[in-house]
Amino acid sequence: MQKPSLPKGTRDFGPAQMAKRQYLLGVIKSVFDKFGFLPLETPAMENLSVLTGKYGDEGDQLLFRILNSGDFLSKADSNDMAGGYNALMPKITEKGLRYDLTVPFARYVVMNRNEIHLPFKRYQVQPVWRADRPQRGRYREFYQCDADVVGTDSLLCEAEIILMITEVYRQLGFQDYVITFSSRKILNALAAFLGAEEKFSSLCVAIDKLDKIGLEKVCEELQLQAGFNQSQIEKTEKFLRLSGSNEGLLDELKVLFEGVPQAAEGLTEVKEILDLVNNFGEDTSRLRFEPALARGLTYYTGAIFEVKPTSVQMGTITAGGRYDNLTGIFGMPGLSGVGISFGVDRIYDVLEQLDLFPASGLEKTKVLIANFDKVSMLQSLPLLKLLRDKGIAAELYPEAVKLKKQFSYAEAKKIPYLLLAGPEEHTTGLYGLKDLSTGHQDTLTKEQLLQKIS
Amino acid sequence: MQKPSLPKGTRDFGPAQMAKRQYLLGVIKSVFDKFGFLPLETPAMENLSVLTGKYGDEGDQLLFRILNSGDFLSKADSNDMAGGYNALMPKITEKGLRYDLTVPFARYVVMNRNEIHLPFKRYQVQPVWRADRPQRGRYREFYQCDADVVGTDSLLCEAEIILMITEVYRQLGFQDYVITFSSRKILNALAAFLGAEEKFSSLCVAIDKLDKIGLEKVCEELQLQAGFNQSQIEKTEKFLRLSGSNEGLLDELKVLFEGVPQAAEGLTEVKEILDLVNNFGEDTSRLRFEPALARGLTYYTGAIFEVKPTSVQMGTITAGGRYDNLTGIFGMPGLSGVGISFGVDRIYDVLEQLDLFPASGLEKTKVLIANFDKVSMLQSLPLLKLLRDKGIAAELYPEAVKLKKQFSYAEAKKIPYLLLAGPEEHTTGLYGLKDLSTGHQDTLTKEQLLQKIS
Repeated sequence: MQKPSLPKGTRDFGPAQMAKRQYLLGVIKSVFDKFGFLPLETPAMENLSVLTGKYGDEGDQLLFRILNSGDFLSKADSNDMAGGYNALMPKITEKGLRYDLTVPFARYVVMNRNEIHLPFKRYQVQPVWRADRPQRGRYREFYQCDADVVGTDSLLCEAEIILMITEVYRQLGFQDYVITFSSRKILNALAAFLGAEEKFSSLCVAIDKLDKIGLEKVCEELQLQAGFNQSQIEKTEKFLRLSGSNEGLLDELKVLFEGVPQAAEGLTEVKEILDLVNNFGEDTSRLRFEPALARGLTYYTGAIFEVKPTSVQMGTITAGGRYDNLTGIFGMPGLSGVGISFGVDRIYDVLEQLDLFPASGLEKTKVLIANFDKVSMLQSLPLLKLLRDKGIAAELYPEAVKLKKQFSYAEAKKIPYLLLAGPEEHTTGLYGLKDLSTGHQDTLTKEQLLQKIS
Repeated sequence: MQKPSLPKGTRDFGPAQMAKRQYLLGVIKSVFDKFGFLPLETPAMENLSVLTGKYGDEGDQLLFRILNSGDFLSKADSNDMAGGYNALMPKITEKGLRYDLTVPFARYVVMNRNEIHLPFKRYQVQPVWRADRPQRGRYREFYQCDADVVGTDSLLCEAEIILMITEVYRQLGFQDYVITFSSRKILNALAAFLGAEEKFSSLCVAIDKLDKIGLEKVCEELQLQAGFNQSQIEKTEKFLRLSGSNEGLLDELKVLFEGVPQAAEGLTEVKEILDLVNNFGEDTSRLRFEPALARGLTYYTGAIFEVKPTSVQMGTITAGGRYDNLTGIFGMPGLSGVGISFGVDRIYDVLEQLDLFPASGLEKTKVLIANFDKVSMLQSLPLLKLLRDKGIAAELYPEAVKLKKQFSYAEAKKIPYLLLAGPEEHTTGLYGLKDLSTGHQDTLTKEQLLQKIS
């Protein structure tokens, strides 16, 4: 018999991991709830007409496609059969697996435009699937954890996203990170400043690599691949070399971009977001305005955010931004939105590396009643029910096996207490309660017992 | 532009449904937790070698198969291409979507046999996918909600399953149901009684239809299709006509099956389960021993359970049973288990029909701060943060639009309170708090406000 296995790049989450994941997702969801975001879930399968063309050519390649049911060849003619996989594909598959949560959200908004009350704040925590080459930290099935507001361009939303990030990491006890942020409009201003508006995307692509390849290589790329002239390169260099406090950078940019009419919008936006966060009275020490932030060639048009840990080697753990035309792809233009995505797999790894998961409290069962023999077991049942009725997660070992075996069951499940309820205990009404972490044993009445472990 | 649509048989769950679903799943999960079951999640995709052959031919037809990535035709030769879809299929697809939660659970247990501590109690709440013809109440993507114990044949597990069912429906406020139960071993005894052990599955299949087609048709099927003789039919009829209390039925069966050595096991089992539930002190008024219960041609070998509503027209809403060889299909024989599955879609519909979802308490945001103008908005931010820091879900309307629009936003989100915090309120420190269900408005200090809505 073939040994069963998992598809490449997928994972089981056993009870120990689940406890940690539920804790982590619980923190994030509770913050989303507290900020007025409402949950949404969409199907795993979407029509390919919804998915394709939304993630670039590379994304289309990485979609998991579902074979049509039944005789999937019924729509294929001999040309399709002879035309290779690209010709055959559209005839045998019409659905694909969700690739992110943003496109399904846009689809949902468009399909429910008449019922939705704007501004619409939703969060969504579901797996997505990508046929990427699996590698350390990169999976073919992974969870995304997104919150978005659509239908308002109020910068209060941007400020609240910064507050949500701060609140999530505060609750998780993780403090070694920076939130870099900017506005895409700063790069618009840079393009105008360079007189290179028509080369905006090459500019973004090159600047986006600053972290990875350094200033020199970025300038080289701009010169050799994008055809920027010497004066443009020098101006870009000046821009990229700017440094200082958030307020200081704003001042420097005002000077650098003097006479560039497009500059005001981006600078005002950044200033206003900073002011709003300050007005909230939120800690801004981890908030860093980074004019060169680009966040790739995404659909972002306004504010952009990126969170990176400072004490562990790890990429971006949270990111987001404002987009002006998300639902435009489905024929509903003019709806502005802003969103944030928590990278739960990476955050999980960070918490694991820094040992930040709670040492206790994640276990579920509080007490295991030992099973001595059939008669005492039957006598223990009302007590077991009582414990549960009081909201205490409790178990009775299902068989009257050696105590050692029952101990090791409790240990494996990290159950904190073992309750000894044998013939004598049931006669006297005094039960032995063993704290399995200290080994200490108390003799308690039923009432004392309930008080002790509830 | 094409209007976006959902694949047939799939659904979005918008915020209103999500609130109800989270409530329902929350109740079920909390009961699983309280009984010591631990959560498990498995990937949506499984290798087809794991899935196929486990659900019968019909099940194999209903699997959603995932097209191999890249050039999916690279493994197909000209014979495969000319051989129709059945020949081509195994060359172009190697993975399928989860069809139930039981087979992935068995796979998990076998793959992790060395780490798992037996008895292993797990629950799993995840969607499954079936390429069934969609119809009212039948979806291609739906959630299953399973709890299983493997590694012990203690009947305590059966009794606890009955307690979990009772507890879940008690918490949901739903009382109009019966739990029918039996043991497959009763049908083994019947087969022995008839001298028809070799026709056990035809016997089960026919008896399973009793509810739908009635006694006469069942006997007709046994005679015409399964070749039972007159004496066997008469005996079966006698068996199927038995009625009475749980204890009464046990007595009658003891008489009917006198001299059938196989009868003792099933009867003792049923008796013991009843006794255990009684010993717990649990209400047994909805528990009905039904000797003719068969639960189709499934893998069950011992106890079987089925829950049906009595006051609404609806099929089985919860079902389960004991299986002796679940992991045998993956080369790990001899592991007995028992499980239960809550049909959340149907339970949702029952609660909806009977209006049993809580009328309030499902909304998330407790208070909406009205936005009067930019200056008061900035002044409201610390108050907004304070509310959230106190654990109160709160929002500030992001734009200073007409109050009517802000009211209707609160209404649409079922937010119970609107907080009026304009220039005057910020000056006096006295805020207007409007209860949106009664229209009543209070004037409160910040402290009174916090007390009132927390």
